[in-house]
Amino acid sequence: MIFSSLLCDLYELTMADGYFREHTYNKEAIFKISFRTNPFGGDYALAAGLEEVVNVLRNFSFKEEDISYLRGLKKTDGTPLFAETFLTELAKFNFSGSLWMVEEGEVIFAKEPFLIVKGPLWECQILETILLNAVSFATLVATKASRIVLKANKKEVIEFGLRRAQGKSGGLIASRSAYIGGFSGTSNVLAGKLYGIPVKGTIAHSWVMAYESEYEAFQKAADIMGNGTILVLDTYSTIFGLENAIKVGHELEKKGQKLLGVRLDSGDIAELSRVVRNALDKEGFTYTKILASGDLDEYLINKFEMANVPVDVWCVGTKLATCYDMPAIDMTYKLVALQNEKNGWDYKIKISDQFEKTTTTGFQQIRRFEQNNQYLYDVIYDRNLGLSEGDYFSIIQNHDVLKLVFDQGKLCYALPELADIQKKALANLAKLPTNNLIYPVQLDKNLEELQATLLAEQKVY
Amino acid sequence: MIFSSLLCDLYELTMADGYFREHTYNKEAIFKISFRTNPFGGDYALAAGLEEVVNVLRNFSFKEEDISYLRGLKKTDGTPLFAETFLTELAKFNFSGSLWMVEEGEVIFAKEPFLIVKGPLWECQILETILLNAVSFATLVATKASRIVLKANKKEVIEFGLRRAQGKSGGLIASRSAYIGGFSGTSNVLAGKLYGIPVKGTIAHSWVMAYESEYEAFQKAADIMGNGTILVLDTYSTIFGLENAIKVGHELEKKGQKLLGVRLDSGDIAELSRVVRNALDKEGFTYTKILASGDLDEYLINKFEMANVPVDVWCVGTKLATCYDMPAIDMTYKLVALQNEKNGWDYKIKISDQFEKTTTTGFQQIRRFEQNNQYLYDVIYDRNLGLSEGDYFSIIQNHDVLKLVFDQGKLCYALPELADIQKKALANLAKLPTNNLIYPVQLDKNLEELQATLLAEQKVY
Repeated sequence: MIFSSLLCDLYELTMADGYFREHTYNKEAIFKISFRTNPFGGDYALAAGLEEVVNVLRNFSFKEEDISYLRGLKKTDGTPLFAETFLTELAKFNFSGSLWMVEEGEVIFAKEPFLIVKGPLWECQILETILLNAVSFATLVATKASRIVLKANKKEVIEFGLRRAQGKSGGLIASRSAYIGGFSGTSNVLAGKLYGIPVKGTIAHSWVMAYESEYEAFQKAADIMGNGTILVLDTYSTIFGLENAIKVGHELEKKGQKLLGVRLDSGDIAELSRVVRNALDKEGFTYTKILASGDLDEYLINKFEMANVPVDVWCVGTKLATCYDMPAIDMTYKLVALQNEKNGWDYKIKISDQFEKTTTTGFQQIRRFEQNNQYLYDVIYDRNLGLSEGDYFSIIQNHDVLKLVFDQGKLCYALPELADIQKKALANLAKLPTNNLIYPVQLDKNLEELQATLLAEQKVY
Repeated sequence: MIFSSLLCDLYELTMADGYFREHTYNKEAIFKISFRTNPFGGDYALAAGLEEVVNVLRNFSFKEEDISYLRGLKKTDGTPLFAETFLTELAKFNFSGSLWMVEEGEVIFAKEPFLIVKGPLWECQILETILLNAVSFATLVATKASRIVLKANKKEVIEFGLRRAQGKSGGLIASRSAYIGGFSGTSNVLAGKLYGIPVKGTIAHSWVMAYESEYEAFQKAADIMGNGTILVLDTYSTIFGLENAIKVGHELEKKGQKLLGVRLDSGDIAELSRVVRNALDKEGFTYTKILASGDLDEYLINKFEMANVPVDVWCVGTKLATCYDMPAIDMTYKLVALQNEKNGWDYKIKISDQFEKTTTTGFQQIRRFEQNNQYLYDVIYDRNLGLSEGDYFSIIQNHDVLKLVFDQGKLCYALPELADIQKKALANLAKLPTNNLIYPVQLDKNLEELQATLLAEQKVY
């Protein structure tokens, strides 16, 4: 992926410059990424984006041309926006901090720490936007994918979204995160090459239109694809397309081959798939799969599955790749602690007239408790204060959710294979409580007391 | 921008391979991009994406590692998916066709041709997804931006969306298209460098939290920013933030400087902006601007503007950068004509059980008619058949909307400066009819007859 360290908001650089002028730039700071509400009205998010965070931080440096561009920026009075001493330091930027993050394929919940970065104030400040950009959409679309897979009733789901994705990287992130969420493949060839995702495809209407007749087009497709033949039925009319597909299916059988599938792309999928299934079965094509595409999402697929619609493979594009019903997750990046002059930590909160915008402080970690392969609850605690002796310790199985990815600038996390991330995701999702209660996330007593103290002390104005 | 020609759907390559096997690959084809409905429930779209199309086509070639990846793909029976002869040709791919497209900053309407590509069948087929991806989101977000600017009542609007954009390219496209749509700047520094868009910024809550008190943080910001000082008021509570800002404003005045602005980021913007404006004016800061941010879109801004809310600068992020209320436009890429054996054109339509999915044929061009600086109507006609002698010729001012960008593989369009595209966009938008009627788009009689003939003849099944 392309990467430029200038993918940041201007104020991050002007603030960093300010910290230099104030000589506070090297104070250790802790920032936290979290989100306020679970996406899509659901009860969880499926984390993704760690690999991209690693890519970002390993390649984060300002090139000479970037510095030149910044040097050219002026204040309203015509003087340079950035101090030359700051630009000199910026040219040497090299992330020296530590970073903890939820692993890809892990479930995570609203208000929990998603990512913690600890390092020199100016470094942390500059990374704000690029880190948010790296994790927010990846997580959103992984979550969406897992919701679709859940409703697909163990049937195969394929991702077809590149054409309407929000830019090239949006399409690639969608393919990768969809696979993490349990999709079996993608039409996006570059995603196949970059991430090793199985690539899948059928034929387009234009193939059918490029021949004198649909029948001829189907024959030509079958000649070439053999056992891999999947025919799109609705170039002119699904019912007549079905007749032609059956003819070609018989011709394949004569050659000892099998018509792999037919694709429905418009019309009443529920009704058409039943007609198609009956006709195929009657002609002996019990092995031929029915694929369906066209503005599908988890709600529609659920409706179809509840009605036992005989579709074997769901092909999902736009609604997944743009997260159509909720195209952004409300992730924020907030300062939670700053080193004080005694080398201790000053904990920070941002309070707000809008209650839901008040932040929770702490050098946070999540302890997750489970029993009999079911997650029970999470406890957010402060690393410095530790876990209090809560009742929750009656549960023996528990683990910390955030993993150390960078330790003082050094990568110390082995990136897993994407297929293993998918396995992990499916296993984790299976551990979510199946009742409809909201998953319990609580603050540890020590952290709760710290937060209460800060709220009480909040007299800075 | 990063670019890889593998950003395509697998079926485009398997179909292209098929055309090679059938020796139909070099037949001249014409494909058309269009969209079915004007986005956001509005009456128009503002076109963008031409520059990216040029970038894509100039760089479209398959590298050796791409070919190697494709060589490794297998059919279900273990044989290679692609013929070696096809891969050899693919490695030499060089777009040799012609392309017409609506210019950036031009208004365009549902069902009109947005882009026409004419060239060898296999080349056109392979470009399907990358072309759709290049133009669809760029146009969507330019349209969204223009709608926001329209409701902002000539006030300045700035784009802040990178952090929640769908990937890096999504963020860059949003910044660029927002500028085309009339935004005055962006927080995205890379967009500033790449496209020359003015970059803008304020300070974050973390700056305020990094100091002992908000007052101290504001002082430090003012020391550094001088006349460019913009203070965010709601880190703790907007009203107390306002008091601190006024103190610092007076200190700036003592130094002969001026507090440029204050930013509201939460709470009741309508109420708070009035309180802030009154307090600022009472203290003599009539020159200090009020900026507002936080989940703004055209609907909210319109509501505020109708209520004469005293905000001077609207800062728009997530809702614009992800096109939150409609994150995709239903653009399609359809075959409309194919060369026949007599070197003439066989016109094509895709019909459908779903009426709205039936395509319109033709080697299309749009003729736009205007009078007194108002667009009156558009006529879609076929280049081969020409415009019929319609009544519409009583209008003398008219022009063809689609411009030739590539002529037989050669770029023949001079890319305008982005600032000029913005000017053009604003001028074009001002020419839209101000009544609430749907803008009239009609098929020319010659094309209508051709379409009717094809519909009648559609007996291929």
